[in-house]
Amino acid sequence: MSKKTIGFIGLGVMGKSMARHLLEAGYPLTVYTRTKEKAEDLIKQGAVWKESIKDLAKDANVIITMVGFPKDVEEVYFSENGILANAYPGAICIDMTTTKPSLAEKIYEKSKEKGISFLDAPVSGGDVGAKNGTLSIMVGGDQETFDECFEIFEKMGKNIVYQGKAGAGQHTKMCNQIAIAAGIISVCESLAYAVRAGLDPDKVLKSISSGAAGSWSLSNYAPRMLSNQFEPGFYVKHFIKDMDIALEEARRMELDVPGLELARSLYEKLAEMGEENSGIHALYKLWKK
Amino acid sequence: MSKKTIGFIGLGVMGKSMARHLLEAGYPLTVYTRTKEKAEDLIKQGAVWKESIKDLAKDANVIITMVGFPKDVEEVYFSENGILANAYPGAICIDMTTTKPSLAEKIYEKSKEKGISFLDAPVSGGDVGAKNGTLSIMVGGDQETFDECFEIFEKMGKNIVYQGKAGAGQHTKMCNQIAIAAGIISVCESLAYAVRAGLDPDKVLKSISSGAAGSWSLSNYAPRMLSNQFEPGFYVKHFIKDMDIALEEARRMELDVPGLELARSLYEKLAEMGEENSGIHALYKLWKK
Repeated sequence: MSKKTIGFIGLGVMGKSMARHLLEAGYPLTVYTRTKEKAEDLIKQGAVWKESIKDLAKDANVIITMVGFPKDVEEVYFSENGILANAYPGAICIDMTTTKPSLAEKIYEKSKEKGISFLDAPVSGGDVGAKNGTLSIMVGGDQETFDECFEIFEKMGKNIVYQGKAGAGQHTKMCNQIAIAAGIISVCESLAYAVRAGLDPDKVLKSISSGAAGSWSLSNYAPRMLSNQFEPGFYVKHFIKDMDIALEEARRMELDVPGLELARSLYEKLAEMGEENSGIHALYKLWKK
Repeated sequence: MSKKTIGFIGLGVMGKSMARHLLEAGYPLTVYTRTKEKAEDLIKQGAVWKESIKDLAKDANVIITMVGFPKDVEEVYFSENGILANAYPGAICIDMTTTKPSLAEKIYEKSKEKGISFLDAPVSGGDVGAKNGTLSIMVGGDQETFDECFEIFEKMGKNIVYQGKAGAGQHTKMCNQIAIAAGIISVCESLAYAVRAGLDPDKVLKSISSGAAGSWSLSNYAPRMLSNQFEPGFYVKHFIKDMDIALEEARRMELDVPGLELARSLYEKLAEMGEENSGIHALYKLWKK
């Protein structure tokens, strides 16, 4: 069976690495992104540039979107020159952006009306995971569409789990972000305590990182916090977007999330300090003032 | 060089396993604990029972304490029939209880006046770490005393780090507890969100446990939360004690710890529900009401 043509929309830090894996796996790949320069090395590698989403959508068997915010996703799917107005019946769309579960459900329904299949498939693992093809991919939608796309997901990720009906991928990503949110506060406070108490924070990390206090954040972010390396990784502005989605969903479900609320309020302060384009571990700056 | 006689005070879940490792490593071991029955299997293995702390302190080269609360530590060291009034000059005392850094400094000073060496050496790794001899041991006091005791620590733990002067071990343990505190809130919220959103929480854990949201708490506590297994492990009442010490120290150092404060307030609610003797992952019960 010949490989499907994949159209990839959105070539930011994450999208570009993900698209490259598909290209290197031999998929015919078309690409579109707002700033054409970002596509240039992929084009050199063999990707075909499309001048618009419309052009891309018309010919692709599978369309993958990896854009920024829910409003970008809405535009890309629902506008007149967008995906759903131009993709052919039988095409499969996969949104890998982190966005609202309710939006994923809406795209799924609107797609279905046109005979298009849709999966919500947000990822975690960050720029490094995207680069190394080791992302965790959490997928919602119809099981048979998931099965059909599994070999595509396999090119981009390692931990690929079908989570259930449309929206379930996005909900799972919210669980991921909630698990990070209050956790990173605890990492900041622990480090700040170590420094204030006059301890050697590197030695403290040696004592606490591998035990019950251990976390990905502690192992990966704490050393960067200590050495003043606050480049993203994962942007503060995107994390705020994600936390807002999670908070909205939690309110809708009448779920108490005081830890998430606290994290959101601390990131608000951080954004006010002009740190929206730093990595999320820049939260530590609140303790360094 | 013949092995030192070690006197071990406090044979709770942790202390008993730790003492057993010393016995099995061939150290002459004397023991005392409030409830003699708890010592019986160690006595069968060759430990020598002492009728009082005074009796134990008189003959031991090294005295290890692993008791419950700071007030217990004060009594064991400072009372008339306690350690410092009865240990011989040249003895080494090691408090492995989690207690106040200021108390560790005080015992260090009072010990020094009597020619006794003192280390604060709290541990993390819980009952399983104690049983398997894989504890993380964080040590404060004089470097030469630490060096002299290293081979003793090696029998009980794997990750043994000298953290600095008296109190530094306890401060490091506070860093450990702070790193757990807000983190466990995020685990509860993440799971509660998964359940409320109608996801399969086991699948969610499969998606999120190994990435950036990963933590010891998520891997070890979340499955127990989901299967209603709330036995300790690490007691709520002891965690509250530790958080109170950390909060007191943070206030003294004028350090903001909103995540720790939130955790403390949630554990207050949990204690009011009668859960003081549950494991700390019983925090999840706040979301199951």
